[in-house]
Order: sequence, then structure tokens, then C-alpha cells
Amino acid sequence: HPQRAPTVGIIGAPFSKGQPRGGVEKGPDLIRTAGLLQKLQEQGCEAKDYGNLTFDEFPDDEPVGQVKNVRAVGSANQRLSEAVKAVKKDGHTTVMLGGDHSLAIGSIHGHSAAVGQLSVVWVDAHADINTPLTTTTGNMHGQPVSFLLHELQSKVPALPNFSWLKPCLSARDLVYIGLRDVDPGEHYFLKFLGVKVFSMTEVDRLGIGKVMEETCDYLCTRGNNPIHLSYDVDAIDPTVTPATGTPVVGGLTYRDGIYITEQIRHTGLLSAVDMVEVNPLRAQTEEGVRSTVSTAVDLLLGCFGRLREGNHPQDYVPPEP
Amino acid sequence: HPQRAPTVGIIGAPFSKGQPRGGVEKGPDLIRTAGLLQKLQEQGCEAKDYGNLTFDEFPDDEPVGQVKNVRAVGSANQRLSEAVKAVKKDGHTTVMLGGDHSLAIGSIHGHSAAVGQLSVVWVDAHADINTPLTTTTGNMHGQPVSFLLHELQSKVPALPNFSWLKPCLSARDLVYIGLRDVDPGEHYFLKFLGVKVFSMTEVDRLGIGKVMEETCDYLCTRGNNPIHLSYDVDAIDPTVTPATGTPVVGGLTYRDGIYITEQIRHTGLLSAVDMVEVNPLRAQTEEGVRSTVSTAVDLLLGCFGRLREGNHPQDYVPPEP
Amino acid sequence: HPQRAPTVGIIGAPFSKGQPRGGVEKGPDLIRTAGLLQKLQEQGCEAKDYGNLTFDEFPDDEPVGQVKNVRAVGSANQRLSEAVKAVKKDGHTTVMLGGDHSLAIGSIHGHSAAVGQLSVVWVDAHADINTPLTTTTGNMHGQPVSFLLHELQSKVPALPNFSWLKPCLSARDLVYIGLRDVDPGEHYFLKFLGVKVFSMTEVDRLGIGKVMEETCDYLCTRGNNPIHLSYDVDAIDPTVTPATGTPVVGGLTYRDGIYITEQIRHTGLLSAVDMVEVNPLRAQTEEGVRSTVSTAVDLLLGCFGRLREGNHPQDYVPPEP
Ligand SMILES: [Mn+2]
Ligand SMILES: [Mn+2]
Ligand SMILES: [Mn+2]
Ligand SMILES: [Mn+2]
Ligand SMILES: [Mn+2]
Ligand SMILES: [Mn+2]
Repeated sequence: HPQRAPTVGIIGAPFSKGQPRGGVEKGPDLIRTAGLLQKLQEQGCEAKDYGNLTFDEFPDDEPVGQVKNVRAVGSANQRLSEAVKAVKKDGHTTVMLGGDHSLAIGSIHGHSAAVGQLSVVWVDAHADINTPLTTTTGNMHGQPVSFLLHELQSKVPALPNFSWLKPCLSARDLVYIGLRDVDPGEHYFLKFLGVKVFSMTEVDRLGIGKVMEETCDYLCTRGNNPIHLSYDVDAIDPTVTPATGTPVVGGLTYRDGIYITEQIRHTGLLSAVDMVEVNPLRAQTEEGVRSTVSTAVDLLLGCFGRLREGNHPQDYVPPEP
Repeated sequence: HPQRAPTVGIIGAPFSKGQPRGGVEKGPDLIRTAGLLQKLQEQGCEAKDYGNLTFDEFPDDEPVGQVKNVRAVGSANQRLSEAVKAVKKDGHTTVMLGGDHSLAIGSIHGHSAAVGQLSVVWVDAHADINTPLTTTTGNMHGQPVSFLLHELQSKVPALPNFSWLKPCLSARDLVYIGLRDVDPGEHYFLKFLGVKVFSMTEVDRLGIGKVMEETCDYLCTRGNNPIHLSYDVDAIDPTVTPATGTPVVGGLTYRDGIYITEQIRHTGLLSAVDMVEVNPLRAQTEEGVRSTVSTAVDLLLGCFGRLREGNHPQDYVPPEP
Repeated sequence: HPQRAPTVGIIGAPFSKGQPRGGVEKGPDLIRTAGLLQKLQEQGCEAKDYGNLTFDEFPDDEPVGQVKNVRAVGSANQRLSEAVKAVKKDGHTTVMLGGDHSLAIGSIHGHSAAVGQLSVVWVDAHADINTPLTTTTGNMHGQPVSFLLHELQSKVPALPNFSWLKPCLSARDLVYIGLRDVDPGEHYFLKFLGVKVFSMTEVDRLGIGKVMEETCDYLCTRGNNPIHLSYDVDAIDPTVTPATGTPVVGGLTYRDGIYITEQIRHTGLLSAVDMVEVNPLRAQTEEGVRSTVSTAVDLLLGCFGRLREGNHPQDYVPPEP
């Protein structure tokens, strides 16, 4: 499957109000500083950096029911949705650097607004499918999927700064990989909606090779729509990516994580990527931050054609004496 | 396979004389302090704590041949056997918190006395099937299986404080998982008796998914007897569970270890569990102790219904706006 | 497959000039000090230590084109080739303890000179198949395969102190396992020559069990020639073997690495082993050095009959009371 190198449009989203821990807003610049753009270019990938979005402040952003920072999250995602839509219209595969995972609302919405029906591959320790009524924490980074799904529209109340948002995703166009910390209400939704889920139990049973084979077959039966890969670094084991807000033991290995990106890339359908929840203030050591950021970069390189078996230009001619 | 939550009866066995290293008697209270009971209850499991057994002292417990602390081990296991039998008669799935692995003698004997023919799944880096005559260390935690097997009765000499014990297990009702440090005499017995063994070589060859499929198929052909799961934390890799007396490199991952418990639970046949060889004095760091104890708790939660894909009550009704 | 224990002939090659980092010349003695000989003997393997080779100094070893230390590398490998050939003629399975991986030139050449057509299993993060004209570093430890392959003879220029060397290996007799850092020119050669490669992508897809099944089947179709196993410790993940010059994230687990040796041993065809690139000056901690060296020893023990399921003498008789 030789493919033209896609062009990449990078959008920084230094936003942390979908959860309570400061630091995750540093993710975009950390990933850039680790050399993302240069490395993409070195592997033959044209990349354009659209810089960081700025977000409005909402000083009186009182909780709505349980849910915290509703107005800030709604506004930030509206802005992000416009940005992703614009970068898609420019013809790029988008890379949204978070920031917390509530940003998937805007990223997926904007992506869908630009290209229509999507498949979403959600790689995460968590399902992030609580509604504002099932959440026990009130953090919106645990709820984005409920806002996006057609099937859950009746379960999600109207919230300030969310009137712009219409659901754009069908439950059968969603695949989860890596789940290992799922709330009861979330589990109910996953079962009730028949969502395709590869929890860590399935990853252990099948191995990541079979998981990705089944994932790609499934996406194929769904019509080979453009893929939105929403990657939470906490999907990877905390021994590898400790610098994140809600680490959960027993995660994907580095190798599992990279293999996922290689196979998604191999479909030729990858159209947008989120890389979220890198939080340098959450690791115990500098090495933990370095490993987390460097893994995030490697996952993105895997999305854009880096192969562990290597690669060479089609017109390569070996030198002779 | 929806299952009624089993009720759990917890028996602490703070006993360390099956091996030479102090500290393993602290296992039961450490595992309790890490929240075992509360976490079981949170996942809908009724749990009753029967407290810690007390064991007689044997000040003149001279070695018998090579074997150390024979009288103490014989006496402790007789007491434990009675306790397990009583808790089984109360209708619980027993959880025996060790202590060292010599306690499997009493735990399996008492379990069998209460329910009859058992299957035993022994998860361990070691086979613990030396006889008092093949042991090179003299430690009884390396010998419990030889005392339990009908087939080895002629190989095990009479020992003080062991006259109460009659073999209660057939070699074909025993499955090993995780072996990687097996003595020559032990290997002879395993081969001679045709014991079902998944050493780390088989785990590497097949993956833990296939290993558990074959294990459960095998137990099924043996008649779906009640399962006794005897779990030595040293089965798990020392990077995860370093706080143990005889760590061996190249062990099960945390994920392998949890998957084993999920699948054993899924049979609906789990009737007793041992969780042994947690020794807080053997780790280099406090984090090593924490990780070991927390893994032991997670393994037990897996035995009693925790699923990484999540769970919800059968009568769950999602909230609507 | 019961096998006579092979006799092992150990050759130390404390040579580091195939790469720029001091310390890798300490490999042979570190591996000996960790008890290799005694442990081989304990597992019933006769082992003879031929000591360390000494190598000539080349004070004016100016680069030839890009390539550094050409004369030293050529001379050292000529000496090593003679030594390996002699030890093979003595009837041993050779173990060459490096030193850097440029030594595979002499080791494989000498092996082939003694026994004829070989299969080579190259376990490495790197393909080491650059030519003196494609190398970007100029380090010869990244080039040995190009010197050995018949098919690349026209791509390799004549170099001082290499006139003794004739290619002795066919591309279809070469299998790679563990690749994850391959240069464009190297990738071109691998594809162009149709070399059998199990990069980390294939290891993730298939699991190490299937990788070794396919490897052994492939070697069988090639005619069951004597196997030369060239093992670079950097094939294993740097969390396990950090004491090496060019570590690459995402490597083989300890278990993967050992399983490879068990399966190669199981073919009955293993005829020579290289264990290279142990460099104690490259780890951050003493524990990193210990883990690297001890893994190297375990890999060698796996090559010579150590089985994780255990072993017993054919004439073993269990003691009875
Ligand atoms: Mn998430
Ligand atoms: Mn998450
Ligand atoms: Mn044990
Ligand atoms: Mn053990
Ligand atoms: Mn190498
Ligand atoms: Mn290498």
C-alpha cells in the first residue's frame, strides 16, 4: 500500500478546564519542543503548524448541576471545531495537540463538519462517555463522547455555550481500544448501544495484532469512512506515560500503542488525530515527563508513516563503488 | 454468563515458617489495609473477614532430615484446614491471605474436605512439588503439592504433625501457570505424572488468551469441579511484585495476571483462593511494597467479578434530563 | 527432541573500534564474571574458555571515505575468523563474546569456513546492513551484513585489511528479528534482496510464538543448515538491557528474547552464537549494568538447553522414604 505522504496541519489547544489538574495546557508546546514538526518533515511529511488557539476566560463559570467549567468547555470546543474544520478545508490531516480530552468534542465536530460521516477510534483507559447526569466527578474530559453521539442526545441536557453543538457520530462508527476503568453508567451505554470495545481484557485475549485486524475489518464494514483517531496518552501504561492526570495500571505497552498507529495509518483513511492528556506536572520525575512526551511524538510519527521495518524513497538508488 | 456475586470469607494466615525470610507474616494485614474488603463491597461482593489465625509455637522444631520447621508447618496447616473447611461450610468462597505457600497444604485440604473433588490452578514461578526427600533448601513452601497429591504419597515420608493429612488431589486435576524455576526432581514429577503445565515458555508461545482458553477447556474435561486458585505473587514479574521472597525474572505481566483471574472467575467454578508470599521486607523500595500489595488486591478483585470492560447493575436505568 | 548437550567453546573478543563508545570491550569479562561458565556446566553443558583474543593497534587508521577504523576492524575480524574456525574444528558450538557487532564479520566468516553453508539469525534493533557507501555514521558495527552477503559484493568497495574476506552468506539464508531502527539504504537492501524480516511490527502482529514458528519453518525450507545466531543485546528493550551503545525504545521483552533462544536451541542446529554490544559505561545505574549482563548470560543459557519448564537427567530416579 504505497501512499502519498499526507500533509499535516497542527493545531495546539492548551486547554485544561475539562479536568481539575493544572499542567495539561502545556501539552502542545512540550510536544512541539520534542521536535514533532522536524521529525515529521524528516520522514517526508509536509507539516504546517497553525499555532495555539486562545480561549476565552469565564470568571463566573459556576457548576451546572455536577458539571464544572461548562461555559469554558463549550466555548473552547466551539473555537476548536471551527479551527479543525478550517484546517480540514485546507486539505490537511489535522493533529490536535491537547489539552484535556474534553477537546475531542470540538475536534470531532469540526472534522465531521468538514468531511461528513466519520469513524472514530478512541484509544484510552477510559470510555469518556458519561453524560452530565451520570458523571460523578463533574469533569467534562470524562464526557465528550456522550455529547457527540446521536444515540445519547436525549440523555444530555442543554448546557450553556453548547447550543452550537449537534451530535455528529453514530455509536456503530465508534471503536474503543484500551479501556480498563469504566463507570457503571458508561458500561450501560456501551452495552446498550452495542459499541465495539476492545478493553484490556480483549487486548490480552487476542493480542494487539488481532485487535487491530478486527478494528480495521470493522471500520471497513462501516464503509471506509475517514478515521478520527482520538488518542489519550493514558491508554499507554503509566510506566511509559506517567505524565498524565488519570493514570491507570495495566495499560497498553509502548509497542501496542505504536502498532495501533501503524495499522490505522495503513488503512489510508486517517483524517484527524487528537493527542491529549499529556500533563508534565503529574509525573514524579523529569524522566517520566520525557518518556511521556517522547511517546506522544512517536505515536504521531506512527500515524504519519513511520514504520519500524524502515522505509526508503521510491526512487532510491544504492551507491556503488 | 451473569453470575450472582459470591460471598467471600477471608482468612488471614500470618505464617512464615515454610521459608526462612521474616516479613511474609505481614501479608494478610497489608492486603487488608490496602482496602480489600471495602473494594470487594464496592464491586457488589459481600465479604466477611474471619480475622487472622494464630499458630502454636514449636521452640524445639528441629529439622527432620533436610526439612525445616516441620512441626510448626504441620500444626499451622491443620489449623488452617479446619478454618477453611468451616468457612466453606458457611457457604463462602474462601480467600486465604498468606503467609508463605506451605499454607496451601491446609487451604486445599480443608477446601477438599468441605466440597470433595477439586481442580487446582497453581499460579507460580515455582512448582512447589519437591518432596521432603528432593528438597535442596529444606523450605516447606517449596513442597506443598507433594503432600497433596495422591500419586506422590509413596514418595513423601511420615513427618511429625502431619498425621492428620491425607492426600486429596489428583495430578490430572492440577494446572500450573507461570513456571520458570523448576528443580530437576520437580520436573521429573511433572513429566512422570503428566501434569498440565503452562510454563513461561508456553505463555510466550501461546499468549495468555490461549493459555486460559486451554486451561478452562481442560478443567471442563475434568468435570467442572470446584476450582481452588493458589496464587503466589512471585508468578508476576518482579518489576511489578518485587516484595516477595523468591522473585524470578521473566514473569507474568500485571495484565497476564489479571486476565487469569478474570477467566477463572468467568468459569463460575471458583470456590477458594490463596494469595501468598507477599513479603514487605523483601522489596528495595516502599513503591515496590505498594505495587506488590496493590497487585495482590487487584488479583483478588479480578477473582470476584471486577472486569476491565466495566460492569453495571442489572436494573441500571440511565438518568435523563 | 532429547539432545546431547553440545560442548561450548567460548571466545572473548574485547574489541570496540566498530563504534565510537568506549566500554564495549569490557563485555567478555563481564559476562564471564557473571558466571557464564559455571552456569553452563551446572546445566550439564561442557564449556571450554579459549580466553580473550588480542588485537593489533593501528595508530594511523585514517577514515576511508566515511568509514572509521577500517584497518583495525579488518585485522580484528581476520583474527577472530581464524579463532572461530579453529574452535569449530575442535567440535564446539562457538560463543563469541563481544565487543561490538562489527565482529560478526569474522565470527560468521570463520564459522562458514569451518562448516560451509550457514543460516544466520540476526537478533537486533538494527539491520547492520549499511555498506561503506551508505553509512551515515561511518561506524562499522552498522555494516557487517553488507560485507558477508554474496548479493552485496558489488556494492562494497575494497578496503584496507579486508582482502582476506570473501562473502559467505546468501540473503535468503538470513533472518532478522527485532528490527526497529532501519536506515533508508538498509531498507532498500532488505526489500531488494527479499530478506526474511520480523521487525517489531511483525513481532507485535504475530507474537513471538508465531515469529519463531515461522523462523524455524523458514530455516527448515532452506535446508536445515547450521545456525549462526548473532545476538545484539540492543534487540532487547532498554528497560532491561540499558548498558549498550545504541538503545532503541520499544524492544523485545526479556521473555521474547529468551523464547528466541529456546526455540533456536530446539532446532538442534545451533552451531555458533555471538553475544555483542554489552557496554557497562552506557547504563545510568549499576542495576542497569547488572540487568544487561545477567540478561546476556540468560540468553546464552537458553541457547544451550536451559528450559523454563525445567529439566531432569534421563536417568533420574526420585528418592523414596
Ligand atoms: Mn480520555
Ligand atoms: Mn483517559
Ligand atoms: Mn509458591
Ligand atoms: Mn513461587
Ligand atoms: Mn547490531
Ligand atoms: Mn543494534
